Amino acid sequence: MTSDIEIARAAKKRPIVEVAARLGLSPEDVLPYGHDKAKLTHAALAQMQDRAPGKLILVTSINPTPAGEGKTTTTVGLGDALNRIGRKTVICLREPSLGPNFGMKGGAAGGGYAQVIPMEDLNLHFTGDFHAIGSTHNLLSAMIDNHIHWGNELGFDIRRISWRRVVDMNDRALRDITVALGGASNGYPRESGFDISVASEVMAILCLAENLVDLQARLARIVVGYTRELKPITAADLKADGAMTVLLRDALQPNLAQTIENNPVLVHGGPFANIAHGCNSVIATRAGLALGDYVVTEAGFGADLGAEKFLDIKCRKSGLAPDAVVIVATIRALKMNGGVAKADLGVEDVPALVLGSTNLERHIGNIQKFGLPVVVAINHFATDTAEELAALTGICEGLGVKAILCRHWAEGGAGAEELARAVVAMTEEGEAALKLLYADELPLWEKIQTISREIYGAARAEAPARIMAQLSQWQKEGYGDFPICMAKTQYSFSADPALLGAPANHVIPVREVRLAAGAGFIVAICGDVMTMPGLPRHPTAQRIGLTATGEIDGLF
Amino acid sequence: MTSDIEIARAAKKRPIVEVAARLGLSPEDVLPYGHDKAKLTHAALAQMQDRAPGKLILVTSINPTPAGEGKTTTTVGLGDALNRIGRKTVICLREPSLGPNFGMKGGAAGGGYAQVIPMEDLNLHFTGDFHAIGSTHNLLSAMIDNHIHWGNELGFDIRRISWRRVVDMNDRALRDITVALGGASNGYPRESGFDISVASEVMAILCLAENLVDLQARLARIVVGYTRELKPITAADLKADGAMTVLLRDALQPNLAQTIENNPVLVHGGPFANIAHGCNSVIATRAGLALGDYVVTEAGFGADLGAEKFLDIKCRKSGLAPDAVVIVATIRALKMNGGVAKADLGVEDVPALVLGSTNLERHIGNIQKFGLPVVVAINHFATDTAEELAALTGICEGLGVKAILCRHWAEGGAGAEELARAVVAMTEEGEAALKLLYADELPLWEKIQTISREIYGAARAEAPARIMAQLSQWQKEGYGDFPICMAKTQYSFSADPALLGAPANHVIPVREVRLAAGAGFIVAICGDVMTMPGLPRHPTAQRIGLTATGEIDGLF
Repeated sequence: MTSDIEIARAAKKRPIVEVAARLGLSPEDVLPYGHDKAKLTHAALAQMQDRAPGKLILVTSINPTPAGEGKTTTTVGLGDALNRIGRKTVICLREPSLGPNFGMKGGAAGGGYAQVIPMEDLNLHFTGDFHAIGSTHNLLSAMIDNHIHWGNELGFDIRRISWRRVVDMNDRALRDITVALGGASNGYPRESGFDISVASEVMAILCLAENLVDLQARLARIVVGYTRELKPITAADLKADGAMTVLLRDALQPNLAQTIENNPVLVHGGPFANIAHGCNSVIATRAGLALGDYVVTEAGFGADLGAEKFLDIKCRKSGLAPDAVVIVATIRALKMNGGVAKADLGVEDVPALVLGSTNLERHIGNIQKFGLPVVVAINHFATDTAEELAALTGICEGLGVKAILCRHWAEGGAGAEELARAVVAMTEEGEAALKLLYADELPLWEKIQTISREIYGAARAEAPARIMAQLSQWQKEGYGDFPICMAKTQYSFSADPALLGAPANHVIPVREVRLAAGAGFIVAICGDVMTMPGLPRHPTAQRIGLTATGEIDGLF
Repeated sequence: MTSDIEIARAAKKRPIVEVAARLGLSPEDVLPYGHDKAKLTHAALAQMQDRAPGKLILVTSINPTPAGEGKTTTTVGLGDALNRIGRKTVICLREPSLGPNFGMKGGAAGGGYAQVIPMEDLNLHFTGDFHAIGSTHNLLSAMIDNHIHWGNELGFDIRRISWRRVVDMNDRALRDITVALGGASNGYPRESGFDISVASEVMAILCLAENLVDLQARLARIVVGYTRELKPITAADLKADGAMTVLLRDALQPNLAQTIENNPVLVHGGPFANIAHGCNSVIATRAGLALGDYVVTEAGFGADLGAEKFLDIKCRKSGLAPDAVVIVATIRALKMNGGVAKADLGVEDVPALVLGSTNLERHIGNIQKFGLPVVVAINHFATDTAEELAALTGICEGLGVKAILCRHWAEGGAGAEELARAVVAMTEEGEAALKLLYADELPLWEKIQTISREIYGAARAEAPARIMAQLSQWQKEGYGDFPICMAKTQYSFSADPALLGAPANHVIPVREVRLAAGAGFIVAICGDVMTMPGLPRHPTAQRIGLTATGEIDGLF
C-alpha cells in the first residue's frame, strides 16, 4: 500500500501562483513562500470585502474514536469533488502544530488521495504563523514581569497573574515552573508555566479577528492578571497591543496551499479545540467565500464540541452561517461506539453498529436544532460490509437524512462526487436558517446549562460555589454576553471519555472557568484539560531525520 | 533630516528574482519569501561548489563607543561602491535578533543611504530562521527532561545539565528558573533558565556548518550535560540530531535581500558576538564568493573580538581567508577613546584624537600580525573638521596604511568609491597571506594567553584553579585542538570597559569556560556576559504599532 507521504510526494504540485490565478488572484495579490505556499496580502483581502459570498459547508463528525473518522480527509475529498463537478471551491483548514509531530507520528493534512501539500512544510514551520503567535504571546509575558520589576505601577498581585508563556513544543518540564529567580536584576520570583502555542489566547484572537484594527482591539482587551483588589489588568494597560499587532501583521494573512488534485486550500490558524474554539480563521473563511462559489471547512473534534463552538462562537461573532453540514462517520467508529473492541473492528457486527449509531443520531439531531440541513458522509474502509452499510443507510433514512458512501481516501475527489452533488442540492434548496443555541443575553451559567442539556443530553451541569461566584463576577463586569467555550473530553457526549454512544441523564461537572477577554468567550473546563502535552517514552523525534536525498523521514 | 526608515521606504525595491538573476540565479534557484526576500536553495548551493571564488573583504572596526562607528553601514556602502565601479559584489551580513527591538529603538540593517531592505522584515521575523533555531534548541531541551522523566537511562546528573532553553525575546524573568515542578507527570524538578536565541549553540553551529550532513554531525556532538561520573552526554546519545536537522533544513539556506541601491545582500545567521564567534554563516559567505567577484562581510564588535574570532574560528574551520581588511573608525569615536565626553564630541579636539588613535593603531597592528593588508575607512560625520581629518590621515600614513574618508551614509555607494578602489588595488596586489594567531595544537590555556598578549596587549591571562583543571580535562577528552572563543567586554582591549585607548600590562581574568562541542570551540568568559537581556523601564514595545496605512511605527 502506498503511504500518505508517498502519495503526497508523487503528487504533481502546481506553482502556487497558478493556483492563486485560478481564484482570480494576481501575482501581486499573494506573497509567495517558496513556490508552493503563499499568503494572501492584506490589500487583496481588503478588495474582496464587497464580493457576494459563496456557500459555506461545515464538515463535522461523530465523537472521535481510536478507529479514526477522517474528518480532514473528507473535507479535502469533498472540496476536490466539488471542483470536479464544476463548482469553484476553496477548502479552509487549520494549521497543524509543530511540537506534537516530535512526540507521535503525525501529519494533519488529510490522508490517502485526499491530502493537502506540501505536507512536510504544513507540519513543520509552514509560513511561520505559529512562531509569530509565540513571539507575540511571549512579548506580553516579558512585559508583565518587566513592568513588575521596574516598580509595578499597575499594582499586579503577583499571585494572580493568569498570562503564562508559550512554546510550540511538547515540553512537560515547562508546565509548572518558577520564574525570576537569581536576584534583584531578574525580577520578583513567582510561579508560572508554559502552554503549547496553539493554546494561546493570541491564537484564538487571530482566528476571530476581522482585520488588523480588530486584531489590535482584541489584543488590547486581553486580561493578563489582577490587582490585590481583583481589578483586571489588560494588555492595553501595559501598552503592549501595538507591538503585538506588529508581530502578527504578516501572520494574519491566510496561507494558500493546494490539494494533490491542485485545488486551492486556505490553511490558517489552529486554536486548540478544547480551551479554544478549534476552527480556522474567520479571515480565511471569508476570503474563501469571496473567492469561491463554495467553501468547505471543518471544526475540531466531534459535532458536540467542534460544530457547537463553530456555530455559537465563530458564526455568532462573525455573522458567518453554514448552508449545509456534513457529519462524517465510519462503520468502524460506530461499531466502537456500540462496544466493539478496536481489535475486532474487522468483523461484521450489525447489532453493534445499530447500537453505536445512537451517537450519530444525536449529532444529527443537534445540527438540526441549529436549523441546518445535514448529510452523513460514510468514510469508506475496506472492512465495511454490504450489510453494515445498508443498516447505517437505513438508520439515516429513518431520520430523513441521506447517508452517502465516500471513497475519497482511495480515489480522491472522484470518490466523493455523490456527496458533492448532495451538498450542492442541499445548498440550492436553501433550507439553512441558522438559529444559535442561546442568546447573548442569557446569563453565563444558563448558557452552560443549555449546552449541557441540549447538546450533550445531560441532566444538568454542576459547579462549586467559587465558580458560580466567578461567573457572577464576570456577569457584573460586563462579560455576561460572551458565549461559552466548553472544554470537555472529545470522546463522549458526557464528561467521561468511557461513556460512548449517546449517554443520557449524566452530569457535566464544571471544574474551572477562564476568561478570554480578547477572544471574547468564557472557557468552561469540565475535567482535565492539558494545555502542554508531554513527549512519550520513545518520541518520534528519535527516528526523524533527513534521507541522503534531503527528504524528511520518520515524521509521517 | 530624512530618517533611516524614511530612506528605506522611499527606496525602489527590485523584485528579488531580478536581484537573483543579476547573480546568475534562475527563479528555480531561489525560494521567494514575499517579493523582496528569498532563500538560495540547497540544490543551487550544491551547484556552486566548484566555482572559482571571488575576493573576500572583511570589515571590522575600532572598539565600539557610544559615539557610533558604522561598521554595518560601511559594509553596505563599500558593497554598493564596488558594484558602482563595476565589480560584481555580494554583501554578507548577519540577521538581527527580534527580541531586542522591543527593548530599545533598534534596526540593524545599516543606516542613511547605506541600508539593506526590507528593513522591517529583517528586524522582525524575516524568513523565520531564528524561530527555527529556537525550535531546534528547545526540542533538544524537551528531550533531555523527557528522557530523565522516563527513567534516565543515560544517567544524567540533573545538577549538571548545561543545555538550557531559548527564546528570541528580552525576558529577564526567564534567566533563572526552576522547571518540572507540579508533580510526578511533569518530571524531576531542577534549576535551569532561558537564553536569547542568538546565544544558542545551535546558532553558532548553523553559521559554521558546510552543508546539511556537516550540520547534523555538529548537532550530534553537542554536549548537553554530564553523568555523576562526569561523562559527557550528547545530542546524539539522545538521538535528537536527526530531528534537529529536519527543523533546520530550510534555515540553513542563505537569505537574499538587497541594498537600497539594489545590490545583492546575503543575510544569514547571527551568533552572539560574545559567547559565540559573531559572524554570518560560512554557507552564505561561500555562496557570495561563488556568485560574486567580491564579498564584503563584517565581524561583530571591534577587531580585537570580531576580527580575531572571524579569523581564528570561522576562517580556521572553513578555510576561508580575507584578501583585504577594512577597519572602520570615526573621528568622534577616536576622540572618545582620547577621553572626550559624548556631549563634547562636536568640538574640534586634535590632541584627544591623537591620543585616542592609539586604539586604532593597535587594531591595525593586530590585523597585520595576521598577514593581512589593511585600509582605514573614516566614516564621515558632519562635525569632523579638516584639521582632525588631516591628523588622522597622517597618523595612518605614518603606519603605512591608507585612511580614506567615506560618505556612504549621506551619499550611498558614490560616497565610498575611493574606498572601493583602494580595496580593489589591495586585493590585486595579492599581499594577503593569512597566518592564524595560534596552531590547533597549542594547549587551550596557551591559546588564551596568546590572544591576551598578542591581541589585547595584556601582560597575561589569569584563571582560578578550577578553570585550569577544566581546561586540562577537556584537553584530555580530545577537545584540545579547539580554538578559543573569547567573551569579554567589547569596549576595551582589556576586560575593563572603562579602559579606552590602548591599555597595556593589564590582566585578562578568565572567570568561566564553556564547551561548545558542536560548534567546535571553547568559550572563555572574562567578566560578566549576559546571555538573556532584559527590557528597560520604558521598552520601545510600548510605542510600537501600526499606522492607519499599515506601516510599522516606533520600531526604528
